[in-house]
Amino acid sequence: MQLGMIGLGRMGGNIVRRLMLNGHSTVVYDRNAQAVEALVAEGSVGSSDLADLVSKLTPPRAVWVMLPAGAITQATIDTLAGLLSPGDVIIDGGNTNWKDDVRRGKDLAAKGLDYVDVGTSGGVWGLQRGYCMMIGGKAETVTRLDPIFSTLAPGIGEVPRTPNRGGHDPRAEQGYIHAGPCGAGHFVKMVHNGIEYGLMQAYAEGFDILRSAGNEGRPEGESFDFDMADIAEVWRRGSVVTSWLLDLTASALAEDKDLREYSGYVEDSGEGRWTIEAAIDQAVPAEVLTAALYTRFRSRQEHTFAEKILSAMRKGFGGHIEPKTTEPKA
Amino acid sequence: MQLGMIGLGRMGGNIVRRLMLNGHSTVVYDRNAQAVEALVAEGSVGSSDLADLVSKLTPPRAVWVMLPAGAITQATIDTLAGLLSPGDVIIDGGNTNWKDDVRRGKDLAAKGLDYVDVGTSGGVWGLQRGYCMMIGGKAETVTRLDPIFSTLAPGIGEVPRTPNRGGHDPRAEQGYIHAGPCGAGHFVKMVHNGIEYGLMQAYAEGFDILRSAGNEGRPEGESFDFDMADIAEVWRRGSVVTSWLLDLTASALAEDKDLREYSGYVEDSGEGRWTIEAAIDQAVPAEVLTAALYTRFRSRQEHTFAEKILSAMRKGFGGHIEPKTTEPKA
Amino acid sequence: MQLGMIGLGRMGGNIVRRLMLNGHSTVVYDRNAQAVEALVAEGSVGSSDLADLVSKLTPPRAVWVMLPAGAITQATIDTLAGLLSPGDVIIDGGNTNWKDDVRRGKDLAAKGLDYVDVGTSGGVWGLQRGYCMMIGGKAETVTRLDPIFSTLAPGIGEVPRTPNRGGHDPRAEQGYIHAGPCGAGHFVKMVHNGIEYGLMQAYAEGFDILRSAGNEGRPEGESFDFDMADIAEVWRRGSVVTSWLLDLTASALAEDKDLREYSGYVEDSGEGRWTIEAAIDQAVPAEVLTAALYTRFRSRQEHTFAEKILSAMRKGFGGHIEPKTTEPKA
Amino acid sequence: MQLGMIGLGRMGGNIVRRLMLNGHSTVVYDRNAQAVEALVAEGSVGSSDLADLVSKLTPPRAVWVMLPAGAITQATIDTLAGLLSPGDVIIDGGNTNWKDDVRRGKDLAAKGLDYVDVGTSGGVWGLQRGYCMMIGGKAETVTRLDPIFSTLAPGIGEVPRTPNRGGHDPRAEQGYIHAGPCGAGHFVKMVHNGIEYGLMQAYAEGFDILRSAGNEGRPEGESFDFDMADIAEVWRRGSVVTSWLLDLTASALAEDKDLREYSGYVEDSGEGRWTIEAAIDQAVPAEVLTAALYTRFRSRQEHTFAEKILSAMRKGFGGHIEPKTTEPKA
Repeated sequence: MQLGMIGLGRMGGNIVRRLMLNGHSTVVYDRNAQAVEALVAEGSVGSSDLADLVSKLTPPRAVWVMLPAGAITQATIDTLAGLLSPGDVIIDGGNTNWKDDVRRGKDLAAKGLDYVDVGTSGGVWGLQRGYCMMIGGKAETVTRLDPIFSTLAPGIGEVPRTPNRGGHDPRAEQGYIHAGPCGAGHFVKMVHNGIEYGLMQAYAEGFDILRSAGNEGRPEGESFDFDMADIAEVWRRGSVVTSWLLDLTASALAEDKDLREYSGYVEDSGEGRWTIEAAIDQAVPAEVLTAALYTRFRSRQEHTFAEKILSAMRKGFGGHIEPKTTEPKA
Repeated sequence: MQLGMIGLGRMGGNIVRRLMLNGHSTVVYDRNAQAVEALVAEGSVGSSDLADLVSKLTPPRAVWVMLPAGAITQATIDTLAGLLSPGDVIIDGGNTNWKDDVRRGKDLAAKGLDYVDVGTSGGVWGLQRGYCMMIGGKAETVTRLDPIFSTLAPGIGEVPRTPNRGGHDPRAEQGYIHAGPCGAGHFVKMVHNGIEYGLMQAYAEGFDILRSAGNEGRPEGESFDFDMADIAEVWRRGSVVTSWLLDLTASALAEDKDLREYSGYVEDSGEGRWTIEAAIDQAVPAEVLTAALYTRFRSRQEHTFAEKILSAMRKGFGGHIEPKTTEPKA
Repeated sequence: MQLGMIGLGRMGGNIVRRLMLNGHSTVVYDRNAQAVEALVAEGSVGSSDLADLVSKLTPPRAVWVMLPAGAITQATIDTLAGLLSPGDVIIDGGNTNWKDDVRRGKDLAAKGLDYVDVGTSGGVWGLQRGYCMMIGGKAETVTRLDPIFSTLAPGIGEVPRTPNRGGHDPRAEQGYIHAGPCGAGHFVKMVHNGIEYGLMQAYAEGFDILRSAGNEGRPEGESFDFDMADIAEVWRRGSVVTSWLLDLTASALAEDKDLREYSGYVEDSGEGRWTIEAAIDQAVPAEVLTAALYTRFRSRQEHTFAEKILSAMRKGFGGHIEPKTTEPKA
Repeated sequence: MQLGMIGLGRMGGNIVRRLMLNGHSTVVYDRNAQAVEALVAEGSVGSSDLADLVSKLTPPRAVWVMLPAGAITQATIDTLAGLLSPGDVIIDGGNTNWKDDVRRGKDLAAKGLDYVDVGTSGGVWGLQRGYCMMIGGKAETVTRLDPIFSTLAPGIGEVPRTPNRGGHDPRAEQGYIHAGPCGAGHFVKMVHNGIEYGLMQAYAEGFDILRSAGNEGRPEGESFDFDMADIAEVWRRGSVVTSWLLDLTASALAEDKDLREYSGYVEDSGEGRWTIEAAIDQAVPAEVLTAALYTRFRSRQEHTFAEKILSAMRKGFGGHIEPKTTEPKA
């Protein structure tokens, strides 16, 4: 079927490519004209602005918005809403807060437009592996867009089938689900990312314990100079902690077991924070997911004010004077 | 080669089976005579006690001890030490604290005996998938035992190879490593289990947030009745959080998405606790691994005394009276 | 000076009493007529509705709203805004989210009205000890209301003076501060409560460790049957952990060292949650304050879905079957 | 009564002084002869080595060991054990692990010697405020030493009495308790310090949230430039979070609200770690006390290896490149 795509960055561009490789037709727009030209060269229909893109799509239209920042996404959707016709659908595949989806779904419905939110996992690997998609919106709309979703999804592939799935949605095995009404897709993707933070931190702490087992000053016979790369590799085969994240860790450690390329400064994105906000809103204790987020916050500071407060108290009650400097380590 | 096995439970028995299936000869002992008979019927040489087992092995002997509890393991090793000859090796494949390995390695070396500790992951799946092994001991001893380890290990199998592993130990790709001197094997296995706790808790919290998104009383449009089984399934394909633990979760949720079979009471074992002790000893912040352990502690109590202290304070400063009962939930 | 008070619950009623005891005049309203009558009997001027209250105040009026729930507070302020005249001031002394204060401050300023938010600590003890107040709003408005605030505040009392406070706001020593513009008062109070959660949890965990040191099954010589009441009491004198919360704990434990009156179910209120939201918004790692909140979430459930997920995985990879019941404990 | 004191540092020296000021006689030893001379000048009997000290005490002797490090304490007690006579008592007032006390109590009892462990809080303030003491040992021995303990304790002082303490140990109100058998004193002191870490961290996080509310880039109207010194001061009067630790914080912030004197590097001592080990051993969830400890671990590193692992994964699955540097902050 036909899809309009707005935003031709790494994600949007590759989604278009995967669709074209599988026989779909696409109309594309990006404020960077070169990005448009590149995809036109691969078979897309280019457009010069949003109105042009809309004019080149056949109703009922489907327009996928794949933009990096929330503010631009909202502005784009507002503009589109004035250009589209009843029965058209806007798909937001970006990293949107699910509460914005709930609101948009209502706003657009009032204008006769459909809205579908797609949480998309797959990153730089999606073109090759396919995109794992968690979709929110009206059931009939999601069904109408199924040719798109089934093409983008990874499919069953070589992943062994889960037994006893009779009665469950067969799309899940293909790598996409209709999670619920507007907002449901990004909600599930949000929690996916929250879990991702927790998994990453679990591995990270484990490797930190392994590495520091060889620190200077350990008692004789209790100091171990482990090979991080070999440990990550061995766990990939038959252990309980095998995962794709471990595969990636093993690759990075094979290149440099000291990871000297990395400073230790770690960014976080909205989904990790929103997951904790949801946990608090729903009164769910989420210790691990929260601790994983806080580690990233801490990684970006040389010292916290909190730590200075601690030292000030320690001086106050015990006369303790802390060392003035932190030694580089690890 | 020839191996003596003491302890024919699920782990020990299947290790013997996997060895015999691949042409090794085994001499077995268990205080349960029926367990011995069963393996004799499959080709093992049986024995009636430790002395009998030792007498049936050809020097230099290799005896694998695979017993569930630390006290019995120690007593067995003490007895073996009096029966074996210089050049023989004792292998402990159980869940032993690495500090015990360090001590034992020294004690047995004084008697001319070798000691090898093997952290073994694989559980109920080992016979079929092979055992991921992390091995501590002298290099030459581990090399001498290589026919055993290479047979038990899963091998490369269908797991894609990590690029750039030139210069690293090729055994890691086969699913076993020589991690370092005595204790190193169980240390790495200990951290493996600590990570396992953290990974499990990350998924658990995520699914809890998803499930409680449908709790009664949520605002209209912000309540989602997610299908846990479909979400676990979809994440198995192309998402960042794919793992074997997720596969298992998807299977359990496919059988019953409410997990009514489980009370919520969760045991923990030594490795999880020892990991945190190592973190504290080495001054490594291990928030996630610790929080995962504490969740299990909490799961086994109806209420903590800590919670009563909180309520007592709240009454004291604010006159707050808490409800008397906790509603069953989730 | 003259103050109107809306909401004559425990907090509002005692604030009025403390003002009258110190020579201020008050006009009061509550939808419960008996509450109004009780304060009229003590010297207040009563009123039958908001319009009546406003009519009995002399411009420029000061109206303090002291209501338990956010929705009623907002509705009351909306109504007041239509009754008051430019130059009048509305004071919200309740447990309001600071973001609502920021919004209200702007909305009311557009109508020529002033708005002051007062975070008030003191609870059931305020009439006797005075109220610790954190105030947000325009400086001149806070100054105009100083006769009210200075009366309500505890004053220096017997608390030893902090040295070197020259150059700092002298009001802080009296127990009230002008923290900043609209919202600043409730922001500081919010963090106060967040800290309160953390302090409480620190004591609670400590007493839990002490109590469980006497659990059955501890090794001989390592089991201690501590007297919780004596420990709380001794720490009140000369230790580093002396505090008012410890005083309250000592009182509760003196009455019943087993705290049998309390179920262990612990409520939380908005401030604790908002503190964590602020931490996340500002990228501040707040492990302790968050853990304290999560403990309360957990205390209100028999079991979490997360715990069932853990057991399902444990069965999957290790065949572990958990006990079906949790024993009442502690 | 007469007491021998070994170790005349800040703690030991001031304990001797407080005893002499109240009519007790003391025999003192320190390997630093000047420290001995100083106390001789104030009225103590000096000694040149342990044997000399023992010879100058009248049986049944009481010898208090107040040394900074565990190894020296153990060696000193071993030597003393060979010099003392049955019926004599050794008191360890240092920061000893309670498990060492349990062992020592047994070892010394076999030689007819008594052993008493005293957890001592008070630090630099003890000479003036008295020492809060948690005592382990045989009841009759603790009773025999009561003249010492009652002198060192703070006494009721100006701290308001807790109601309903009839039936409880009256010593607690004086600032010392007999907590139980050998080890009980240091166990209670250990938990005291664990709680101390948690309380400190709760305040520290709160002030960090307050301070970062004024960070650059905050939305207009939502940025607050709080005065930390005034906030700490106001909470000292009538708020729920009043405590001695808050008094100390207010003093430090009054001197410099930016705490520029402190680097943010924070030491920890054995008690904080041992508290967590006890929690894990007793299966008590102790999230807050543990998080407080981990914050200190983290404060002493520029970056953790864990953080580099996170970045390596993020590059692997998303192509994310982290900034190379951490900006100094706070």
